[in-house]
Amino acid sequence: MNALPEANDIRGYYFKDLSVGMTDSYAKAINKTNSVLFAGISGHVNPIQLNEEFPTETMLEVSIAHDMLTTSFISTVLGTELPGHGCIYLRQDLHFFAPVRPSDPVHSQITITDVNAKKIRVYADTVCRVGETSVVEEEASLFVPNRRKADAA
Amino acid sequence: MNALPEANDIRGYYFKDLSVGMTDSYAKAINKTNSVLFAGISGHVNPIQLNEEFPTETMLEVSIAHDMLTTSFISTVLGTELPGHGCIYLRQDLHFFAPVRPSDPVHSQITITDVNAKKIRVYADTVCRVGETSVVEEEASLFVPNRRKADAA
Repeated sequence: MNALPEANDIRGYYFKDLSVGMTDSYAKAINKTNSVLFAGISGHVNPIQLNEEFPTETMLEVSIAHDMLTTSFISTVLGTELPGHGCIYLRQDLHFFAPVRPSDPVHSQITITDVNAKKIRVYADTVCRVGETSVVEEEASLFVPNRRKADAA
Repeated sequence: MNALPEANDIRGYYFKDLSVGMTDSYAKAINKTNSVLFAGISGHVNPIQLNEEFPTETMLEVSIAHDMLTTSFISTVLGTELPGHGCIYLRQDLHFFAPVRPSDPVHSQITITDVNAKKIRVYADTVCRVGETSVVEEEASLFVPNRRKADAA
Protein backbone atom coordinates (compact mmCIF):
# COMPACT_ATOMS: atom_id res chain seq x y z
CA MET A 1 0.00 0.00 0.00
CA ASN A 2 1.34 3.39 -0.93
CA ALA A 3 1.61 6.19 1.63
CA LEU A 4 -0.74 9.13 1.21
CA PRO A 5 0.80 11.86 -0.91
CA GLU A 6 2.08 14.94 0.94
CA ALA A 7 -0.56 17.68 1.04
CA ASN A 8 2.03 20.17 -0.22
CA ASP A 9 5.09 18.77 -1.89
CA ILE A 10 8.05 21.09 -2.12
CA ARG A 11 8.01 22.59 -5.58
CA GLY A 12 11.22 23.94 -6.99
CA TYR A 13 14.91 23.26 -6.69
CA TYR A 14 17.55 22.69 -4.05
CA PHE A 15 20.77 24.68 -4.22
CA LYS A 16 22.74 21.85 -5.80
CA ASP A 17 20.22 21.54 -8.62
CA LEU A 18 20.52 25.16 -9.77
CA SER A 19 22.78 26.40 -12.56
CA VAL A 20 23.45 29.59 -14.48
CA GLY A 21 20.99 30.20 -17.32
CA MET A 22 17.98 28.44 -15.82
CA THR A 23 14.93 30.60 -16.41
CA ASP A 24 11.23 30.67 -15.59
CA SER A 25 8.38 33.14 -15.90
CA TYR A 26 4.90 34.14 -14.82
CA ALA A 27 2.39 36.30 -16.68
CA LYS A 28 -0.73 37.99 -15.45
CA ALA A 29 -2.84 40.92 -16.56
CA ILE A 30 -3.35 43.62 -13.99
CA ASN A 31 -7.03 44.50 -13.65
CA LYS A 32 -9.23 46.82 -11.66
CA THR A 33 -10.15 44.18 -9.11
CA ASN A 34 -6.47 43.46 -8.45
CA SER A 35 -5.77 47.15 -8.02
CA VAL A 36 -8.63 47.74 -5.61
CA LEU A 37 -7.75 44.68 -3.51
CA PHE A 38 -4.07 45.63 -3.50
CA ALA A 39 -4.94 49.14 -2.35
CA GLY A 40 -7.02 47.73 0.48
CA ILE A 41 -4.48 45.25 1.81
CA SER A 42 -1.43 47.50 1.39
CA GLY A 43 -3.08 50.76 2.41
CA HIS A 44 -1.76 52.25 -0.84
CA VAL A 45 -4.97 54.11 -1.63
CA ASN A 46 -3.76 56.59 -4.21
CA PRO A 47 -6.20 58.12 -6.71
CA ILE A 48 -3.54 57.75 -9.41
CA GLN A 49 -4.29 54.03 -9.33
CA LEU A 50 -7.93 54.16 -8.30
CA ASN A 51 -9.58 57.15 -9.98
CA GLU A 52 -9.30 57.39 -13.75
CA GLU A 53 -10.14 61.10 -13.68
CA PHE A 54 -7.30 61.98 -11.32
CA PRO A 55 -3.99 61.53 -13.19
CA THR A 56 -4.40 64.70 -15.23
CA GLU A 57 -4.00 66.54 -11.93
CA THR A 58 -0.43 65.19 -11.84
CA MET A 59 2.40 64.90 -14.37
CA LEU A 60 1.01 61.54 -15.46
CA GLU A 61 -1.52 61.36 -18.27
CA VAL A 62 -3.23 58.08 -17.45
CA SER A 63 -3.95 55.83 -14.50
CA ILE A 64 -1.15 53.46 -13.62
CA ALA A 65 -0.98 50.18 -11.74
CA HIS A 66 0.69 49.89 -8.32
CA ASP A 67 4.43 49.35 -8.88
CA MET A 68 4.60 46.90 -5.99
CA LEU A 69 1.79 44.83 -7.48
CA THR A 70 3.74 44.57 -10.74
CA THR A 71 6.95 43.64 -8.95
CA SER A 72 5.14 41.04 -6.84
CA PHE A 73 5.04 38.91 -9.99
CA ILE A 74 8.84 38.59 -9.72
CA SER A 75 8.49 37.11 -6.25
CA THR A 76 5.78 34.81 -7.60
CA VAL A 77 8.29 33.18 -9.95
CA LEU A 78 11.04 33.06 -7.31
CA GLY A 79 8.82 31.67 -4.57
CA THR A 80 6.75 29.19 -6.54
CA GLU A 81 8.82 28.04 -9.52
CA LEU A 82 12.52 28.91 -9.64
CA PRO A 83 14.16 28.41 -7.17
CA GLY A 84 10.75 27.62 -5.62
CA HIS A 85 9.26 27.00 -2.20
CA GLY A 86 12.26 26.84 0.10
CA CYS A 87 14.15 29.92 -1.08
CA ILE A 88 14.65 32.97 1.11
CA TYR A 89 14.80 36.50 -0.29
CA LEU A 90 17.97 38.38 0.68
CA ARG A 91 17.91 41.31 -1.73
CA GLN A 92 15.73 42.63 -4.52
CA ASP A 93 16.79 45.71 -6.43
CA LEU A 94 14.12 47.25 -8.63
CA HIS A 95 14.61 49.78 -11.40
CA PHE A 96 11.35 51.15 -12.80
CA PHE A 97 11.59 52.06 -16.48
CA ALA A 98 8.01 52.65 -17.54
CA PRO A 99 4.56 52.78 -15.95
CA VAL A 100 2.18 49.84 -16.18
CA ARG A 101 -1.42 50.65 -17.05
CA PRO A 102 -4.27 49.11 -15.07
CA SER A 103 -5.16 46.52 -17.72
CA ASP A 104 -1.67 45.68 -18.99
CA PRO A 105 -0.56 42.03 -19.18
CA VAL A 106 2.71 41.80 -17.25
CA HIS A 107 5.25 39.09 -18.05
CA SER A 108 7.81 38.52 -15.29
CA GLN A 109 10.91 36.46 -15.95
CA ILE A 110 13.85 35.44 -13.82
CA THR A 111 17.13 34.01 -15.10
CA ILE A 112 19.82 32.65 -12.82
CA THR A 113 23.11 34.52 -13.33
CA ASP A 114 25.31 33.13 -10.56
CA VAL A 115 25.30 30.18 -8.18
CA ASN A 116 27.88 30.91 -5.49
CA ALA A 117 28.67 27.74 -3.55
CA LYS A 118 31.01 29.51 -1.12
CA LYS A 119 28.37 32.01 0.01
CA ILE A 120 25.42 29.65 -0.64
CA ARG A 121 23.84 32.43 -2.65
CA VAL A 122 21.90 32.44 -5.89
CA TYR A 123 21.70 35.58 -8.03
CA ALA A 124 19.10 36.16 -10.72
CA ASP A 125 18.24 38.78 -13.28
CA THR A 126 14.64 39.81 -12.74
CA VAL A 127 12.54 41.60 -15.31
CA CYS A 128 8.89 42.50 -15.91
CA ARG A 129 7.79 43.30 -19.45
CA VAL A 130 4.63 44.64 -21.04
CA GLY A 131 4.86 43.49 -24.63
CA GLU A 132 8.42 44.24 -25.71
CA THR A 133 8.90 47.01 -23.15
CA SER A 134 10.88 46.36 -19.95
CA VAL A 135 8.94 48.07 -17.17
CA VAL A 136 10.95 46.77 -14.21
CA GLU A 137 14.45 45.30 -14.17
CA GLU A 138 17.24 44.44 -11.82
CA GLU A 139 18.63 41.67 -9.65
CA ALA A 140 17.57 39.33 -6.84
CA SER A 141 19.80 37.59 -4.32
CA LEU A 142 18.53 34.46 -2.58
CA PHE A 143 19.42 31.78 -0.11
CA VAL A 144 18.38 28.35 -1.34
CA PRO A 145 18.60 25.34 0.99
CA ASN A 146 20.37 22.19 -0.07
CA ARG A 147 17.97 19.83 1.64
CA ARG A 148 14.78 19.65 3.68
CA LYS A 149 15.04 20.74 7.29
CA ALA A 150 13.71 17.33 8.28
CA ASP A 151 16.68 15.73 6.52
CA ALA A 152 19.25 18.14 7.98
CA ALA A 153 19.23 16.77 11.54
CA MET B 1 -20.58 80.87 -3.41
CA ASN B 2 -17.63 78.56 -3.01
CA ALA B 3 -16.66 76.12 -5.75
CA LEU B 4 -17.23 72.46 -5.03
CA PRO B 5 -14.14 70.87 -3.50
CA GLU B 6 -12.05 68.68 -5.77
CA ALA B 7 -13.05 65.02 -5.46
CA ASN B 8 -9.40 64.08 -4.95
CA ASP B 9 -7.03 66.83 -3.92
CA ILE B 10 -3.37 66.12 -4.45
CA ARG B 11 -1.96 64.96 -1.14
CA GLY B 12 1.73 65.33 -0.55
CA TYR B 13 4.53 67.63 -1.61
CA TYR B 14 5.95 69.20 -4.72
CA PHE B 15 9.68 68.94 -5.34
CA LYS B 16 10.43 72.46 -4.10
CA ASP B 17 8.72 71.72 -0.77
CA LEU B 18 10.89 68.70 0.09
CA SER B 19 14.00 68.79 2.26
CA VAL B 20 16.47 66.37 3.80
CA GLY B 21 15.26 64.87 7.06
CA MET B 22 11.52 64.95 6.34
CA THR B 23 10.02 61.67 7.46
CA ASP B 24 6.68 59.86 7.48
CA SER B 25 5.45 56.37 8.26
CA TYR B 26 2.68 53.81 7.92
CA ALA B 27 1.91 50.86 10.15
CA LYS B 28 -0.26 47.84 9.53
CA ALA B 29 -0.49 44.35 10.92
CA ILE B 30 -0.24 41.57 8.38
CA ASN B 31 -3.07 39.09 8.81
CA LYS B 32 -4.33 35.91 7.22
CA THR B 33 -6.90 37.69 5.07
CA ASN B 34 -4.19 40.00 3.66
CA SER B 35 -1.99 37.01 2.89
CA VAL B 36 -4.72 35.04 1.13
CA LEU B 37 -5.81 38.05 -0.94
CA PHE B 38 -2.21 38.91 -1.81
CA ALA B 39 -1.59 35.32 -2.92
CA GLY B 40 -4.64 35.49 -5.15
CA ILE B 41 -3.90 38.77 -6.86
CA SER B 42 -0.14 38.20 -7.23
CA GLY B 43 -0.27 34.49 -8.05
CA HIS B 44 2.26 33.96 -5.25
CA VAL B 45 0.53 30.86 -3.89
CA ASN B 46 3.28 29.37 -1.77
CA PRO B 47 2.42 27.02 1.11
CA ILE B 48 5.12 28.72 3.19
CA GLN B 49 2.75 31.65 3.49
CA LEU B 50 -0.55 29.81 3.27
CA ASN B 51 -0.22 26.49 5.09
CA GLU B 52 0.95 26.63 8.67
CA GLU B 53 1.92 22.96 8.60
CA PHE B 54 4.25 23.37 5.64
CA PRO B 55 7.30 25.38 6.77
CA THR B 56 8.87 22.51 8.68
CA GLU B 57 9.33 20.88 5.28
CA THR B 58 11.77 23.70 4.50
CA MET B 59 14.61 25.40 6.35
CA LEU B 60 12.11 27.79 7.91
CA GLU B 61 10.45 26.93 11.19
CA VAL B 62 7.28 29.00 10.95
CA SER B 63 4.99 30.50 8.35
CA ILE B 64 6.10 33.86 7.02
CA ALA B 65 4.34 36.74 5.32
CA HIS B 66 4.89 37.58 1.64
CA ASP B 67 7.99 39.81 1.40
CA MET B 68 6.38 41.92 -1.31
CA LEU B 69 3.33 42.53 0.86
CA THR B 70 5.60 43.82 3.63
CA THR B 71 7.53 46.03 1.24
CA SER B 72 4.34 47.39 -0.30
CA PHE B 73 3.94 49.41 2.92
CA ILE B 74 7.01 51.43 1.84
CA SER B 75 5.28 52.39 -1.40
CA THR B 76 2.18 53.25 0.63
CA VAL B 77 4.09 55.98 2.48
CA LEU B 78 5.84 57.20 -0.68
CA GLY B 79 2.70 57.26 -2.80
CA THR B 80 0.19 58.61 -0.29
CA GLU B 81 2.10 60.74 2.21
CA LEU B 82 5.71 61.68 1.48
CA PRO B 83 6.34 62.76 -1.24
CA GLY B 84 2.71 61.78 -1.96
CA HIS B 85 0.40 61.48 -4.94
CA GLY B 86 2.40 62.87 -7.83
CA CYS B 87 5.71 61.06 -7.26
CA ILE B 88 7.07 58.48 -9.66
CA TYR B 89 9.12 55.50 -8.51
CA LEU B 90 12.50 55.24 -10.26
CA ARG B 91 14.32 52.76 -8.04
CA GLN B 92 13.66 50.73 -4.92
CA ASP B 93 16.42 48.61 -3.46
CA LEU B 94 15.31 46.11 -0.84
CA HIS B 95 17.50 44.25 1.63
CA PHE B 96 15.63 41.61 3.63
CA PHE B 97 17.06 41.12 7.11
CA ALA B 98 14.49 39.00 8.90
CA PRO B 99 11.24 37.21 8.07
CA VAL B 100 7.88 38.73 8.98
CA ARG B 101 5.33 36.40 10.58
CA PRO B 102 1.75 36.35 9.33
CA SER B 103 0.34 38.38 12.26
CA ASP B 104 3.23 40.81 12.78
CA PRO B 105 2.56 44.54 12.93
CA VAL B 106 4.84 46.16 10.34
CA HIS B 107 5.95 49.77 10.72
CA SER B 108 7.31 51.29 7.50
CA GLN B 109 9.17 54.59 7.59
CA ILE B 110 10.77 56.73 4.94
CA THR B 111 13.20 59.58 5.54
CA ILE B 112 14.40 61.91 2.81
CA THR B 113 18.19 61.79 2.50
CA ASP B 114 18.85 63.88 -0.61
CA VAL B 115 16.97 66.36 -2.77
CA ASN B 116 18.95 66.77 -5.99
CA ALA B 117 17.72 69.82 -7.90
CA LYS B 118 20.05 69.20 -10.85
CA LYS B 119 18.68 65.70 -11.50
CA ILE B 120 15.19 66.48 -10.12
CA ARG B 121 15.55 63.39 -7.96
CA VAL B 122 14.59 62.67 -4.39
CA TYR B 123 16.33 59.91 -2.43
CA ALA B 124 14.93 58.35 0.72
CA ASP B 125 15.95 55.77 3.28
CA THR B 126 13.21 53.16 3.45
CA VAL B 127 12.80 50.76 6.34
CA CYS B 128 10.21 48.30 7.65
CA ARG B 129 10.38 47.28 11.29
CA VAL B 130 8.63 44.72 13.45
CA GLY B 131 9.07 46.04 16.98
CA GLU B 132 12.73 47.06 17.23
CA THR B 133 13.85 44.71 14.45
CA SER B 134 14.57 46.03 10.96
CA VAL B 135 13.09 43.48 8.59
CA VAL B 136 13.58 45.38 5.31
CA GLU B 137 15.89 48.30 4.61
CA GLU B 138 17.40 50.23 1.75
CA GLU B 139 16.83 53.19 -0.51
CA ALA B 140 14.24 54.63 -2.89
CA SER B 141 14.81 57.06 -5.74
CA LEU B 142 11.90 59.15 -6.99
CA PHE B 143 10.89 61.81 -9.45
CA VAL B 144 8.67 64.43 -7.85
CA PRO B 145 6.98 67.09 -10.01
CA ASN B 146 7.28 70.75 -9.16
CA ARG B 147 3.75 71.63 -10.19
CA ARG B 148 0.49 70.22 -11.47
CA LYS B 149 0.45 69.17 -15.10
CA ALA B 150 -2.50 71.52 -15.62
CA ASP B 151 -0.31 74.42 -14.45
CA ALA B 152 2.69 73.38 -16.54
CA ALA B 153 1.27 74.42 -19.91
